[in-house]
Amino acid sequence: MKALVLEKTKKMAVRDFSIHEQLGPHDVRVKPLRVGICGSDIHYYLHGKIGDFTVTEPMVLGHEASGIVTEIGKEVTRLAVGDRVCMEPGIPSPDSPEFLEGMYNLDPSVAFWATPPVHGCLRETIVHPEQFTYKLPKTVSLEEGALVEPLAIGVYAAKKAYIVPGDSALVIGAGTIGIVTALAALASGCSSVYISDISEDKLEFVKRHYGDKFIPLNAGKDDIRREIAKTHPRGVNVVFEASGSPEAIAALPSYTSPGGRVVLVGMPNEPAPIDIVALEVKEINISSVFRYANVFDRAIEFIASGQINVKPLHTHTFPFNEAAEALTFASGMPADAVKVMISLE
Amino acid sequence: MKALVLEKTKKMAVRDFSIHEQLGPHDVRVKPLRVGICGSDIHYYLHGKIGDFTVTEPMVLGHEASGIVTEIGKEVTRLAVGDRVCMEPGIPSPDSPEFLEGMYNLDPSVAFWATPPVHGCLRETIVHPEQFTYKLPKTVSLEEGALVEPLAIGVYAAKKAYIVPGDSALVIGAGTIGIVTALAALASGCSSVYISDISEDKLEFVKRHYGDKFIPLNAGKDDIRREIAKTHPRGVNVVFEASGSPEAIAALPSYTSPGGRVVLVGMPNEPAPIDIVALEVKEINISSVFRYANVFDRAIEFIASGQINVKPLHTHTFPFNEAAEALTFASGMPADAVKVMISLE
Amino acid sequence: MKALVLEKTKKMAVRDFSIHEQLGPHDVRVKPLRVGICGSDIHYYLHGKIGDFTVTEPMVLGHEASGIVTEIGKEVTRLAVGDRVCMEPGIPSPDSPEFLEGMYNLDPSVAFWATPPVHGCLRETIVHPEQFTYKLPKTVSLEEGALVEPLAIGVYAAKKAYIVPGDSALVIGAGTIGIVTALAALASGCSSVYISDISEDKLEFVKRHYGDKFIPLNAGKDDIRREIAKTHPRGVNVVFEASGSPEAIAALPSYTSPGGRVVLVGMPNEPAPIDIVALEVKEINISSVFRYANVFDRAIEFIASGQINVKPLHTHTFPFNEAAEALTFASGMPADAVKVMISLE
Amino acid sequence: MKALVLEKTKKMAVRDFSIHEQLGPHDVRVKPLRVGICGSDIHYYLHGKIGDFTVTEPMVLGHEASGIVTEIGKEVTRLAVGDRVCMEPGIPSPDSPEFLEGMYNLDPSVAFWATPPVHGCLRETIVHPEQFTYKLPKTVSLEEGALVEPLAIGVYAAKKAYIVPGDSALVIGAGTIGIVTALAALASGCSSVYISDISEDKLEFVKRHYGDKFIPLNAGKDDIRREIAKTHPRGVNVVFEASGSPEAIAALPSYTSPGGRVVLVGMPNEPAPIDIVALEVKEINISSVFRYANVFDRAIEFIASGQINVKPLHTHTFPFNEAAEALTFASGMPADAVKVMISLE
Repeated sequence: MKALVLEKTKKMAVRDFSIHEQLGPHDVRVKPLRVGICGSDIHYYLHGKIGDFTVTEPMVLGHEASGIVTEIGKEVTRLAVGDRVCMEPGIPSPDSPEFLEGMYNLDPSVAFWATPPVHGCLRETIVHPEQFTYKLPKTVSLEEGALVEPLAIGVYAAKKAYIVPGDSALVIGAGTIGIVTALAALASGCSSVYISDISEDKLEFVKRHYGDKFIPLNAGKDDIRREIAKTHPRGVNVVFEASGSPEAIAALPSYTSPGGRVVLVGMPNEPAPIDIVALEVKEINISSVFRYANVFDRAIEFIASGQINVKPLHTHTFPFNEAAEALTFASGMPADAVKVMISLE
Repeated sequence: MKALVLEKTKKMAVRDFSIHEQLGPHDVRVKPLRVGICGSDIHYYLHGKIGDFTVTEPMVLGHEASGIVTEIGKEVTRLAVGDRVCMEPGIPSPDSPEFLEGMYNLDPSVAFWATPPVHGCLRETIVHPEQFTYKLPKTVSLEEGALVEPLAIGVYAAKKAYIVPGDSALVIGAGTIGIVTALAALASGCSSVYISDISEDKLEFVKRHYGDKFIPLNAGKDDIRREIAKTHPRGVNVVFEASGSPEAIAALPSYTSPGGRVVLVGMPNEPAPIDIVALEVKEINISSVFRYANVFDRAIEFIASGQINVKPLHTHTFPFNEAAEALTFASGMPADAVKVMISLE
Repeated sequence: MKALVLEKTKKMAVRDFSIHEQLGPHDVRVKPLRVGICGSDIHYYLHGKIGDFTVTEPMVLGHEASGIVTEIGKEVTRLAVGDRVCMEPGIPSPDSPEFLEGMYNLDPSVAFWATPPVHGCLRETIVHPEQFTYKLPKTVSLEEGALVEPLAIGVYAAKKAYIVPGDSALVIGAGTIGIVTALAALASGCSSVYISDISEDKLEFVKRHYGDKFIPLNAGKDDIRREIAKTHPRGVNVVFEASGSPEAIAALPSYTSPGGRVVLVGMPNEPAPIDIVALEVKEINISSVFRYANVFDRAIEFIASGQINVKPLHTHTFPFNEAAEALTFASGMPADAVKVMISLE
Repeated sequence: MKALVLEKTKKMAVRDFSIHEQLGPHDVRVKPLRVGICGSDIHYYLHGKIGDFTVTEPMVLGHEASGIVTEIGKEVTRLAVGDRVCMEPGIPSPDSPEFLEGMYNLDPSVAFWATPPVHGCLRETIVHPEQFTYKLPKTVSLEEGALVEPLAIGVYAAKKAYIVPGDSALVIGAGTIGIVTALAALASGCSSVYISDISEDKLEFVKRHYGDKFIPLNAGKDDIRREIAKTHPRGVNVVFEASGSPEAIAALPSYTSPGGRVVLVGMPNEPAPIDIVALEVKEINISSVFRYANVFDRAIEFIASGQINVKPLHTHTFPFNEAAEALTFASGMPADAVKVMISLE
């Protein structure tokens, strides 16, 4: 079949690639129709590795997909041929203790698309467990379907924030993950949400597409703590760290109210210094999140109900045969691009 | 000063009534401007008692108030004369163990307006602790301010539901409390909210004013369980019981999903039979709520941010000198009335 | 192989019974050595059914087992032939949503030993997933191993009580489940635990074997509420209901402190009336539990560390060929019997 | 009255000191009888300040006290003259939002003994609110009473760990706070508790007095991670950081199991680097604690029930007129000293 193959660092192509997948009784076969490009795809392309995961053999990229079911296994009951679906890209082992305990995303043996040695979904067909394949309601488009994966990260961060109705929040970072987290925080009970970034472009995007839903702050110009103090003198109840910036991490205790919560979503390259005593005198609680678990259906529901609008995030589409160009384009991080998508139709 | 005084069962009048209140250093004096009539006011008027609380001496009615600050105590720092405010009507003892533990609403010695022997707020001025007096943002009207008290019940119920982002919910009962609970559930992270009642009038009100925000179900005509199962075959994640109906309470386990939660808000007159084994096989958790604690500011925030619109609930206004007529009118429960309010301006 | 077969109501025998089980790659084959008799075994023997589960064909009884591993599947890594083990008797479907969410015990399709149509473990060998088979430390005897299953119910109830260190507790019911719940509550952070029953025999057993660990109360003679009030005037923080008695359930709100918790473990035959308003004014939270999930290893740890002593609960042993007599004996509920066990050695 | 007065850095004396305290209606007057010396007393003596709190005027030291009630205010109901008591040394403002929310220890305006400008309890009498004065059961000695304050820190840390019954734990640091935390963890549901320190003296003390209750690890010699992995290959469920060591803090993610929790108790002098990604891939949750709230009665209960034995911690007693010598002695940190106490009898 045709696939976008990363041959090695900085070398990729859409080409014929042989993957033979057997359809198990609980599996479905899906033809991907829209696949979003993620920062991790770009990172593998540019650097050939993320942390300990190294691309040593040609690997198919892509893990943010919607598509259509073309075949179902014998025991499949919830899905049918022709269903429009999106897919959760990580498959844990049912024998792992993490699976038993309801945190299957933490199973160290999870097979996650486009994470070596597991192939991604930028290809003509893919076999996936019914359990991790979600039917899209009629009102949810394929493009929105491909955005469920990044939105799931935001919804999961909101879940781990244990939001109390009416909480105030600050989201640090206004990239894709920052925006979906801010959207999820608002839909999950926050009554006011600040979003900060050092890029005025990103903040402009937020203002243009989400109007007065959020309060944008420029971390390069504004004194964030003082801005928050104007309406929230004790700090915000929840801070979502989605920038990975050591400076932002160092400042977390100063933004957070006594008894408040921090959720770590961003991934800094180095250990980041934190003022432990500053955490303690406010008894700040810190959660950290890794991908997501048990939220794909919830992300879909939020899109379907209209409570979360991800449409503005989809800014560019490329055809499948230009997938390599799409990735090269996205890796340049143009000011007007948020989510670059590939259409396989 | 003038006040709406309940002399005894079924006898009340707006008349001169002597209450001398001293302004402590942490108190403010407020002139109430809008006061909503609550079911408990009506109940005291009709029956002279609620549970063990019996009206034995003339008592001023009313506990849902917004107003304006006319004087402040020496130590008051957050409020100023002229501030538009609403007030939390229960004052706990700071010496109670419940106060220490953050559940001051459960202090048995709480002094709650219009609960014998404590006078209510349907009078010209009232002294109240700064701590339980909340400034209204400019965008929040006095009528909305007087609706903060009932909304607080809904927000508190939503808080006690520990809503997971994207949860589905059913609210049983579409009276004032049912509607504010449904509004709070939606604003607090539920992605779909059913609301049921046996009165088609009430459901019509919901449909007319809240459009497709909620899914109305007629408990007299529809098979609620089957209706829910159409989209939520395992049941909803959260059920808010706001009817007090024994039939509704008996059916709770059948509406709730495995691992789901029930929040008891309504107050049935008699002990209600519950199928314990039906709860157990789904491990349903039941929370029960009494008034509210620590949510007044959150309810105000939800109104100010536009996430919750309580304006439609305010259906009628009477002038102060017709307060007795207002209460008589409300006690007849006319089909088009939700919240009847008295203006003291 | 030989097995204790329930032919139909009130008819059982140890006889040859053909069960052919294939060893999957993730399975182990175990020879059961000790099997405790549970109230449910007796109930199936006497009545032929529990709730909707009806014995329509000959069924092997028993689900509280320890034994020795005699064969392991290809993918088994944690267990070896010769390991002494105990087994969690319910096997959920990895495809169920409940499994994904960490509450696999609520999977409606769970296959649970000695629950029709699933055979129990009172037989010569049994094949079981490695995932639900737990190695016993050297210091834990086979008899203690067979008591892990009932203890797991107590530990799980304690887990669901969200005990705050130093909580007081009342356990209603001093049968096997009541005692293991009281032991688990004490080991899990309660500082004082009352245990009540209407049987003086049972309370005497508790006093004789557990000395002053618990405060026994005779529900037939003592005014339980008043006894508790002597040292805990606001009521206890946690009540574990392990009797299934409607009278006990009706009295729950009166035993519980404001903000306290109730855990429902016992299974009454009929819906039980509960005073909802009495729950509400104290904001009592009710959890209900069904069997257990993710606690077998924890129950073993508590035995191994010496924090929980289950040895006194094992009162009688019968050889395998007298298994039917053992069950008949146990069904008579003699005063000195708590756990009757069958030895298959 | 006589008091131990810190005149300025490194200068203190037991001398006459004039404090006039009025007994309010909700207060009691207590004669302190035993006062433990805390690291913070020593720190003020040696350095004249802790963080932003600077000793600018003569200040009475001491905040770990038991004593006897000598006078009660008019509204006092739970205490009587002659009662043996211990006292919670921080008095929050009932008007603070933190008090309302049940986290009164976080009130920035809390008045805490021996924290400038508030005088401590090493003096002949002290007036204290009934609310923060706790009656000692007959079986609890005055020495144990004076140890309730440090134990409260351990119990509170255990409370904030949200221990699941049967959890494993590591306590880093075997000083007074480390030991009380380990004791509290064990009493609160942990089934196995490691305790580490770089001082062999401290570990020896633990072994000598607490036998095989804990598993001691020498952080200077042992590879802690490997030692834990022998019995807990996934790491422990809870890590209590009570050393304040940056190296220990950096290693936290490596000790903790997936989904595990860290509780920060120790106070490092500088911001400490933390590997955020290492936290995230295990979704480790970090709580931080500041003193305690709502646990004094619970700490007393644990002592009274025999579940926690603090007696070994009391190693030395000095008479009141040698209080300065006691503090000088304690500041030398002799190998055999844990808690040095002053007797005011």
